[in-house]
Amino acid sequence: MDIAEFVRLSLGCWRSQRSAHHLAFRHFEEVTSTINIEPLETTDSSVVELCKAHDIDPQLANSPFAMRWEGESDWDEDETIEGSTILVPIPDPEKRGKGRLLRGQGYAETIPAVGEYHFNEDGSFVLITPYERAAAEEKIWFATPNLRFRVSLIKTSSGQGVTTASFSSEIRSVNTEN
Amino acid sequence: MDIAEFVRLSLGCWRSQRSAHHLAFRHFEEVTSTINIEPLETTDSSVVELCKAHDIDPQLANSPFAMRWEGESDWDEDETIEGSTILVPIPDPEKRGKGRLLRGQGYAETIPAVGEYHFNEDGSFVLITPYERAAAEEKIWFATPNLRFRVSLIKTSSGQGVTTASFSSEIRSVNTEN
Repeated sequence: MDIAEFVRLSLGCWRSQRSAHHLAFRHFEEVTSTINIEPLETTDSSVVELCKAHDIDPQLANSPFAMRWEGESDWDEDETIEGSTILVPIPDPEKRGKGRLLRGQGYAETIPAVGEYHFNEDGSFVLITPYERAAAEEKIWFATPNLRFRVSLIKTSSGQGVTTASFSSEIRSVNTEN
Repeated sequence: MDIAEFVRLSLGCWRSQRSAHHLAFRHFEEVTSTINIEPLETTDSSVVELCKAHDIDPQLANSPFAMRWEGESDWDEDETIEGSTILVPIPDPEKRGKGRLLRGQGYAETIPAVGEYHFNEDGSFVLITPYERAAAEEKIWFATPNLRFRVSLIKTSSGQGVTTASFSSEIRSVNTEN
Protein backbone atom coordinates (compact mmCIF):
# COMPACT_ATOMS: atom_id res chain seq x y z
CA MET A 1 0.00 0.00 0.00
CA ASP A 2 1.26 3.49 -0.79
CA ILE A 3 -0.40 6.88 -0.53
CA ALA A 4 -1.49 7.06 -4.20
CA GLU A 5 -3.23 3.67 -3.91
CA PHE A 6 -4.75 4.55 -0.55
CA VAL A 7 -6.19 7.83 -1.84
CA ARG A 8 -7.49 6.10 -4.99
CA LEU A 9 -9.32 3.52 -2.86
CA SER A 10 -10.76 6.28 -0.67
CA LEU A 11 -12.33 8.38 -3.42
CA GLY A 12 -16.09 8.53 -3.42
CA CYS A 13 -18.98 9.10 -1.09
CA TRP A 14 -19.07 7.33 2.27
CA ARG A 15 -21.83 6.95 4.84
CA SER A 16 -20.18 7.08 8.24
CA GLN A 17 -21.23 5.86 11.70
CA ARG A 18 -18.92 7.22 14.36
CA SER A 19 -18.86 6.46 18.07
CA ALA A 20 -16.75 8.64 20.33
CA HIS A 21 -15.80 7.52 23.82
CA HIS A 22 -15.08 10.44 26.13
CA LEU A 23 -13.02 8.38 28.50
CA ALA A 24 -12.95 10.46 31.67
CA PHE A 25 -16.74 10.69 31.73
CA ARG A 26 -17.48 7.24 30.24
CA HIS A 27 -19.67 9.15 27.82
CA PHE A 28 -20.75 7.87 24.40
CA GLU A 29 -21.33 10.19 21.46
CA GLU A 30 -22.92 8.99 18.22
CA VAL A 31 -22.37 10.76 14.92
CA THR A 32 -23.80 9.86 11.53
CA SER A 33 -22.44 11.66 8.52
CA THR A 34 -21.75 11.59 4.82
CA ILE A 35 -18.17 12.09 3.69
CA ASN A 36 -17.16 12.98 0.14
CA ILE A 37 -13.60 12.52 -1.04
CA GLU A 38 -12.65 13.90 -4.45
CA PRO A 39 -9.29 14.06 -6.22
CA LEU A 40 -7.54 17.35 -6.89
CA GLU A 41 -4.94 18.16 -9.52
CA THR A 42 -1.47 18.78 -8.13
CA THR A 43 -1.58 22.03 -10.10
CA ASP A 44 -4.80 23.15 -8.36
CA SER A 45 -4.23 26.60 -6.89
CA SER A 46 -5.41 25.50 -3.41
CA VAL A 47 -2.82 22.69 -3.44
CA VAL A 48 -0.02 24.96 -4.62
CA GLU A 49 -0.92 27.58 -1.99
CA LEU A 50 -1.02 25.07 0.87
CA CYS A 51 2.41 23.72 -0.13
CA LYS A 52 3.85 27.22 -0.31
CA ALA A 53 2.40 28.10 3.10
CA HIS A 54 4.51 25.23 4.47
CA ASP A 55 7.60 26.07 2.37
CA ILE A 56 7.24 22.85 0.41
CA ASP A 57 7.85 22.48 -3.31
CA PRO A 58 4.38 21.79 -4.83
CA GLN A 59 6.06 19.32 -7.19
CA LEU A 60 6.46 16.97 -4.20
CA ALA A 61 2.68 16.66 -3.73
CA ASN A 62 1.13 13.28 -4.62
CA SER A 63 -2.60 12.51 -4.89
CA PRO A 64 -4.05 15.59 -3.18
CA PHE A 65 -7.74 15.42 -2.43
CA ALA A 66 -10.67 17.45 -1.14
CA MET A 67 -12.88 16.18 1.63
CA ARG A 68 -16.23 17.47 2.79
CA TRP A 69 -18.59 16.12 5.41
CA GLU A 70 -22.06 16.74 6.72
CA GLY A 71 -23.68 14.99 9.65
CA GLU A 72 -25.37 14.98 13.00
CA SER A 73 -24.31 14.20 16.55
CA ASP A 74 -26.60 12.98 19.29
CA TRP A 75 -24.96 15.61 21.53
CA ASP A 76 -26.70 18.38 19.67
CA GLU A 77 -29.33 17.08 17.31
CA ASP A 78 -30.40 20.51 16.16
CA GLU A 79 -27.03 21.40 14.74
CA THR A 80 -25.57 20.02 11.54
CA ILE A 81 -21.88 19.25 11.63
CA GLU A 82 -20.36 20.21 8.34
CA GLY A 83 -17.05 21.20 6.92
CA SER A 84 -14.55 20.75 4.17
CA THR A 85 -10.81 20.74 3.81
CA ILE A 86 -8.09 19.85 1.36
CA LEU A 87 -5.40 17.30 2.11
CA VAL A 88 -2.04 17.17 0.38
CA PRO A 89 0.26 14.14 0.84
CA ILE A 90 3.99 14.83 0.59
CA PRO A 91 5.63 11.38 0.37
CA ASP A 92 9.12 11.03 1.82
CA PRO A 93 11.30 10.46 -1.26
CA GLU A 94 13.65 8.25 0.74
CA LYS A 95 11.18 6.15 2.76
CA ARG A 96 8.50 4.25 0.89
CA GLY A 97 5.13 4.38 2.61
CA LYS A 98 6.01 7.36 4.80
CA GLY A 99 5.47 11.07 4.47
CA ARG A 100 3.71 14.19 5.63
CA LEU A 101 0.07 15.12 5.16
CA LEU A 102 -0.76 18.82 4.88
CA ARG A 103 -4.28 19.76 5.88
CA GLY A 104 -5.92 23.04 5.02
CA GLN A 105 -8.14 22.90 8.04
CA GLY A 106 -8.22 20.37 10.88
CA TYR A 107 -11.18 18.37 12.14
CA ALA A 108 -11.04 19.66 15.65
CA GLU A 109 -9.29 22.94 15.18
CA THR A 110 -9.62 25.54 12.49
CA ILE A 111 -5.90 25.99 11.95
CA PRO A 112 -3.84 24.27 9.26
CA ALA A 113 -2.07 21.12 10.41
CA VAL A 114 0.78 18.91 9.29
CA GLY A 115 0.72 15.24 10.19
CA GLU A 116 3.20 12.41 9.69
CA TYR A 117 1.85 9.25 8.06
CA HIS A 118 3.05 5.74 7.48
CA PHE A 119 1.56 2.41 6.45
CA ASN A 120 1.64 -0.68 8.65
CA GLU A 121 2.48 -4.08 7.20
CA ASP A 122 -1.25 -4.93 7.15
CA GLY A 123 -1.93 -1.96 4.85
CA SER A 124 -3.45 0.31 7.48
CA PHE A 125 -2.73 4.03 7.21
CA VAL A 126 -1.51 5.72 10.40
CA LEU A 127 -1.47 9.50 10.80
CA ILE A 128 -0.08 11.39 13.76
CA THR A 129 -0.84 15.10 13.95
CA PRO A 130 0.55 17.32 16.70
CA TYR A 131 -1.54 20.30 17.73
CA GLU A 132 -0.67 23.03 20.18
CA ARG A 133 -2.20 21.36 23.23
CA ALA A 134 -2.99 17.85 21.98
CA ALA A 135 -2.05 15.23 19.44
CA ALA A 136 -4.31 13.22 17.17
CA GLU A 137 -3.54 9.67 16.11
CA GLU A 138 -5.64 8.18 13.39
CA LYS A 139 -5.64 4.71 11.87
CA ILE A 140 -7.65 3.91 8.75
CA TRP A 141 -7.97 0.53 7.05
CA PHE A 142 -10.13 -1.21 4.48
CA ALA A 143 -12.10 -4.35 5.41
CA THR A 144 -13.46 -4.60 1.86
CA PRO A 145 -13.20 -2.14 -1.08
CA ASN A 146 -16.48 -0.59 0.08
CA LEU A 147 -16.02 -0.67 3.84
CA ARG A 148 -13.36 1.11 5.80
CA PHE A 149 -12.74 1.66 9.48
CA ARG A 150 -11.10 4.48 11.33
CA VAL A 151 -9.87 4.67 14.92
CA SER A 152 -9.01 8.18 16.14
CA LEU A 153 -7.38 9.01 19.44
CA ILE A 154 -7.05 12.48 20.90
CA LYS A 155 -4.00 12.44 23.15
CA THR A 156 -2.61 14.94 25.58
CA SER A 157 0.26 16.86 24.03
CA SER A 158 2.76 14.82 26.06
CA GLY A 159 1.40 11.75 24.24
CA GLN A 160 0.90 9.99 27.58
CA GLY A 161 -2.84 10.09 28.00
CA VAL A 162 -5.84 9.54 25.74
CA THR A 163 -8.83 11.80 26.33
CA THR A 164 -11.13 10.67 23.52
CA ALA A 165 -11.18 7.51 21.42
CA SER A 166 -13.48 7.21 18.46
CA PHE A 167 -14.35 4.54 15.94
CA SER A 168 -15.92 5.03 12.53
CA SER A 169 -17.46 2.52 10.14
CA GLU A 170 -17.57 4.00 6.65
CA ILE A 171 -19.59 2.37 3.87
CA ARG A 172 -19.23 3.53 0.30
CA SER A 173 -22.52 4.77 -1.11
CA VAL A 174 -21.39 6.19 -4.45
CA ASN A 175 -18.07 5.55 -6.08
CA THR A 176 -17.18 8.52 -8.23
CA GLU A 177 -14.05 6.99 -9.61
CA ASN A 178 -14.03 3.29 -10.53
CA MET B 1 5.12 -9.00 22.08
CA ASP B 2 4.29 -12.63 22.71
CA ILE B 3 1.26 -14.30 24.25
CA ALA B 4 2.72 -14.61 27.76
CA GLU B 5 3.52 -10.89 27.84
CA PHE B 6 0.16 -9.97 26.34
CA VAL B 7 -1.76 -12.00 28.92
CA ARG B 8 0.38 -10.59 31.73
CA LEU B 9 -0.43 -7.02 30.61
CA SER B 10 -4.13 -7.90 30.39
CA LEU B 11 -4.58 -9.25 33.91
CA GLY B 12 -6.78 -7.21 36.19
CA CYS B 13 -10.12 -5.49 36.22
CA TRP B 14 -11.15 -3.29 33.30
CA ARG B 15 -14.02 -0.86 32.87
CA SER B 16 -15.18 -1.16 29.29
CA GLN B 17 -17.14 1.15 26.99
CA ARG B 18 -18.21 -0.65 23.84
CA SER B 19 -19.94 0.72 20.78
CA ALA B 20 -21.37 -1.71 18.26
CA HIS B 21 -22.26 -0.60 14.74
CA HIS B 22 -24.92 -2.83 13.17
CA LEU B 23 -23.98 -1.85 9.66
CA ALA B 24 -27.05 -2.85 7.62
CA PHE B 25 -29.33 -0.84 9.90
CA ARG B 26 -26.87 1.99 10.73
CA HIS B 27 -27.75 1.20 14.32
CA PHE B 28 -25.60 2.07 17.31
CA GLU B 29 -25.50 -0.06 20.44
CA GLU B 30 -23.79 1.09 23.64
CA VAL B 31 -22.52 -1.34 26.24
CA THR B 32 -20.78 -0.56 29.52
CA SER B 33 -19.25 -3.42 31.42
CA THR B 34 -16.64 -4.57 33.85
CA ILE B 35 -14.22 -7.25 32.69
CA ASN B 36 -12.06 -9.32 35.03
CA ILE B 37 -9.09 -11.26 33.73
CA GLU B 38 -7.31 -13.64 36.10
CA PRO B 39 -4.47 -16.08 35.51
CA LEU B 40 -4.96 -19.83 35.72
CA GLU B 41 -2.42 -22.52 36.37
CA THR B 42 -1.66 -24.71 33.37
CA THR B 43 -2.41 -27.62 35.66
CA ASP B 44 -5.90 -26.29 36.51
CA SER B 45 -8.45 -29.01 35.79
CA SER B 46 -10.54 -26.71 33.57
CA VAL B 47 -7.45 -25.99 31.42
CA VAL B 48 -6.49 -29.64 31.16
CA GLU B 49 -10.06 -30.62 30.24
CA LEU B 50 -10.40 -27.97 27.54
CA CYS B 51 -7.09 -29.08 25.97
CA LYS B 52 -8.19 -32.70 26.03
CA ALA B 53 -11.55 -31.82 24.46
CA HIS B 54 -9.52 -30.47 21.51
CA ASP B 55 -7.02 -33.38 21.47
CA ILE B 56 -4.22 -31.05 22.49
CA ASP B 57 -1.44 -31.93 24.92
CA PRO B 58 -2.07 -29.72 28.01
CA GLN B 59 1.70 -29.25 28.29
CA LEU B 60 1.50 -26.98 25.22
CA ALA B 61 -0.74 -24.47 27.05
CA ASN B 62 0.87 -21.12 27.90
CA SER B 63 -0.62 -18.42 30.18
CA PRO B 64 -4.21 -19.64 30.38
CA PHE B 65 -6.65 -17.23 31.97
CA ALA B 66 -10.22 -16.86 33.16
CA MET B 67 -12.38 -13.97 32.06
CA ARG B 68 -15.70 -12.81 33.44
CA TRP B 69 -17.81 -9.82 32.52
CA GLU B 70 -20.89 -8.02 33.69
CA GLY B 71 -22.55 -5.10 32.01
CA GLU B 72 -25.49 -3.37 30.43
CA SER B 73 -26.57 -2.60 26.88
CA ASP B 74 -28.79 0.29 25.86
CA TRP B 75 -30.72 -2.21 23.73
CA ASP B 76 -32.15 -3.82 26.81
CA GLU B 77 -31.50 -1.80 29.92
CA ASP B 78 -33.38 -4.16 32.19
CA GLU B 79 -31.15 -7.10 31.47
CA THR B 80 -27.63 -7.56 32.77
CA ILE B 81 -25.15 -9.04 30.34
CA GLU B 82 -22.90 -11.39 32.20
CA GLY B 83 -20.77 -14.40 31.56
CA SER B 84 -17.46 -16.06 32.08
CA THR B 85 -15.13 -18.28 30.15
CA ILE B 86 -11.64 -19.67 30.21
CA LEU B 87 -9.10 -19.04 27.48
CA VAL B 88 -6.12 -21.24 26.80
CA PRO B 89 -3.37 -20.09 24.40
CA ILE B 90 -1.53 -22.83 22.52
CA PRO B 91 1.51 -21.11 20.95
CA ASP B 92 2.80 -22.52 17.68
CA PRO B 93 6.20 -24.00 18.63
CA GLU B 94 7.58 -23.17 15.20
CA LYS B 95 6.22 -19.65 14.65
CA ARG B 96 6.93 -17.03 17.26
CA GLY B 97 3.91 -14.81 18.00
CA LYS B 98 1.40 -17.19 16.43
CA GLY B 99 -0.82 -19.90 17.80
CA ARG B 100 -4.30 -21.06 18.68
CA LEU B 101 -6.61 -19.81 21.40
CA LEU B 102 -9.04 -22.29 22.91
CA ARG B 103 -12.14 -20.80 24.43
CA GLY B 104 -14.44 -22.63 26.80
CA GLN B 105 -17.40 -20.53 25.79
CA GLY B 106 -17.68 -17.85 23.10
CA TYR B 107 -18.99 -14.31 23.43
CA ALA B 108 -21.72 -14.67 20.89
CA GLU B 109 -22.31 -18.39 20.98
CA THR B 110 -22.39 -20.82 23.83
CA ILE B 111 -20.25 -23.44 22.13
CA PRO B 112 -16.50 -23.86 22.57
CA ALA B 113 -14.40 -22.14 19.93
CA VAL B 114 -10.86 -22.29 18.62
CA GLY B 115 -9.31 -19.16 17.16
CA GLU B 116 -6.00 -18.48 15.42
CA TYR B 117 -3.98 -15.58 16.80
CA HIS B 118 -0.93 -13.62 15.76
CA PHE B 119 0.76 -10.37 16.71
CA ASN B 120 1.28 -7.50 14.28
CA GLU B 121 4.57 -5.63 14.16
CA ASP B 122 2.99 -2.81 16.22
CA GLY B 123 2.27 -5.28 19.06
CA SER B 124 -1.46 -5.63 18.44
CA PHE B 125 -3.03 -9.02 19.04
CA VAL B 126 -5.22 -10.35 16.21
CA LEU B 127 -7.61 -13.27 16.73
CA ILE B 128 -9.69 -14.91 14.02
CA THR B 129 -12.36 -17.35 15.14
CA PRO B 130 -14.50 -19.30 12.68
CA TYR B 131 -18.01 -20.22 13.79
CA GLU B 132 -20.55 -22.33 11.98
CA ARG B 133 -22.26 -19.48 10.16
CA ALA B 134 -19.94 -16.53 10.81
CA ALA B 135 -16.39 -15.56 11.65
CA ALA B 136 -15.15 -13.17 14.30
CA GLU B 137 -12.04 -11.05 13.88
CA GLU B 138 -10.73 -9.25 16.91
CA LYS B 139 -7.82 -6.87 17.31
CA ILE B 140 -6.64 -5.75 20.75
CA TRP B 141 -3.87 -3.29 21.50
CA PHE B 142 -2.56 -1.22 24.39
CA ALA B 143 -2.41 2.58 24.15
CA THR B 144 -0.90 2.78 27.66
CA PRO B 145 -0.42 0.05 30.29
CA ASN B 146 -3.84 0.96 31.71
CA LEU B 147 -5.79 1.59 28.51
CA ARG B 148 -6.48 -0.92 25.81
CA PHE B 149 -8.64 -0.90 22.72
CA ARG B 150 -10.44 -3.67 20.93
CA VAL B 151 -11.99 -3.73 17.47
CA SER B 152 -14.26 -6.72 16.80
CA LEU B 153 -15.78 -7.59 13.45
CA ILE B 154 -18.47 -10.19 12.89
CA LYS B 155 -18.08 -11.42 9.33
CA THR B 156 -20.19 -13.67 7.16
CA SER B 157 -18.76 -17.18 7.07
CA SER B 158 -17.39 -16.56 3.55
CA GLY B 159 -15.33 -13.76 5.12
CA GLN B 160 -16.56 -11.34 2.43
CA GLY B 161 -18.97 -9.19 4.38
CA VAL B 162 -18.97 -7.51 7.78
CA THR B 163 -22.31 -7.43 9.60
CA THR B 164 -21.28 -5.83 12.89
CA ALA B 165 -18.24 -3.79 13.86
CA SER B 166 -17.60 -2.88 17.44
CA PHE B 167 -15.05 -0.83 19.32
CA SER B 168 -14.17 -1.06 23.00
CA SER B 169 -12.18 1.28 25.20
CA GLU B 170 -11.00 -0.59 28.29
CA ILE B 171 -9.55 1.25 31.28
CA ARG B 172 -7.87 -0.65 34.09
CA SER B 173 -9.55 -0.06 37.42
CA VAL B 174 -7.71 -2.57 39.59
CA ASN B 175 -4.50 -4.31 38.71
CA THR B 176 -4.35 -7.64 40.47
CA GLU B 177 -0.86 -8.46 39.32
CA ASN B 178 1.73 -5.67 39.16
